[in-house]
Amino acid sequence: MKDHIIISKATIDRLPLYFRTLRLSQEEGIDIISSEELGQRLGVTPEQIRKDLASFGQFGKKGVGYYVRELIRNIGEILGLHYHWNIAVIGIGHLGSALANYQNFMSLGFNLVALFDADPEIVGKHINGVVVESVDRMAEVIQERNVHIGIIAVPAVFAQEVADNLVVAGIAGIWNFAPIKINVPDKIRVVNEDLSVGLSSLSYHLSRNLVKNND
Amino acid sequence: MKDHIIISKATIDRLPLYFRTLRLSQEEGIDIISSEELGQRLGVTPEQIRKDLASFGQFGKKGVGYYVRELIRNIGEILGLHYHWNIAVIGIGHLGSALANYQNFMSLGFNLVALFDADPEIVGKHINGVVVESVDRMAEVIQERNVHIGIIAVPAVFAQEVADNLVVAGIAGIWNFAPIKINVPDKIRVVNEDLSVGLSSLSYHLSRNLVKNND
Repeated sequence: MKDHIIISKATIDRLPLYFRTLRLSQEEGIDIISSEELGQRLGVTPEQIRKDLASFGQFGKKGVGYYVRELIRNIGEILGLHYHWNIAVIGIGHLGSALANYQNFMSLGFNLVALFDADPEIVGKHINGVVVESVDRMAEVIQERNVHIGIIAVPAVFAQEVADNLVVAGIAGIWNFAPIKINVPDKIRVVNEDLSVGLSSLSYHLSRNLVKNND
Repeated sequence: MKDHIIISKATIDRLPLYFRTLRLSQEEGIDIISSEELGQRLGVTPEQIRKDLASFGQFGKKGVGYYVRELIRNIGEILGLHYHWNIAVIGIGHLGSALANYQNFMSLGFNLVALFDADPEIVGKHINGVVVESVDRMAEVIQERNVHIGIIAVPAVFAQEVADNLVVAGIAGIWNFAPIKINVPDKIRVVNEDLSVGLSSLSYHLSRNLVKNND
């Protein structure tokens, strides 16, 4: 595996899809898959798949296809899934509950180890086998359970405070769902998730269709 | 506004962020904003902002900045937000409830007009002022209320069936949260949302950090 090359964000974003689809294929008993078959399952062109995979090494055999098990292991390693990161969700409203229940995270190898909320009515509930604890205990629990990634699902007004506490507790990465830019030291990795993007992108394309149809 | 040029997906994905941040700035009473100030608020470089905005026309005044109100209107038009699309959520579990309650959609100009679920215990509930109706009434309600966009938040096994029903009911676009590829006619726009992508991307970057620190 090439370690020091730069892979585009678009390619990295497609890898989890490849990973999941290969895992499903493996469960179906498929040992070897062509880029055409994989592309069909994914809705991606075979050329794109070959290009993406070629960017981090040589996989598969020309005229034969990709060895499913090997490719799963390789993509998993590229994505760092073999580290089995410990994750915690902060803010157990609808979104936080949905994230805590999201089975794909577990199937990708992440461990849900802690849940936090400020509301005494929510503290003590069990979600996906994990008990919701008070945010007051956050720093302590994060250190005890060696949480690597904090998922912020609190309202925007509380997001910076939660981020500050996560940093102090020694978190490595933050996945932020609050619609606000959070400020953290450079060494902390932040991925911002903005659910408006998907819907706005759909709006963009639908309005292009209207323009086209009126031409 | 230039109508027929191709804008990159990355640029389109940044536009909702610009839109929202400009709206917040407007609420703060800011009339003119420089690309430096806007970049600071967004965590994006001023060069990127200038490049993105230049790709669909000339805005702002050199040495002065962007006129906030004008830019909001222009970005809104590019994203097609002025069409005020009617949206419906299908599947009112944790994720569907979170989406139905997501205030950003409303602030972007989308109208939540219908909610559907198959569970009789959920049908009849009110979320964000909208009553949850039985999926059996989906086709009828979608036509009556002129729903443009259907948001699929059901488990993967039901996603294709829901998509088929949406297509028959005459929907224009689908925002699919089910982790499965849905098949629809070409004229229907589909945006797939995969929550695993953000977390996997974080995993990728955290593992690169480990590699770097061990070098």
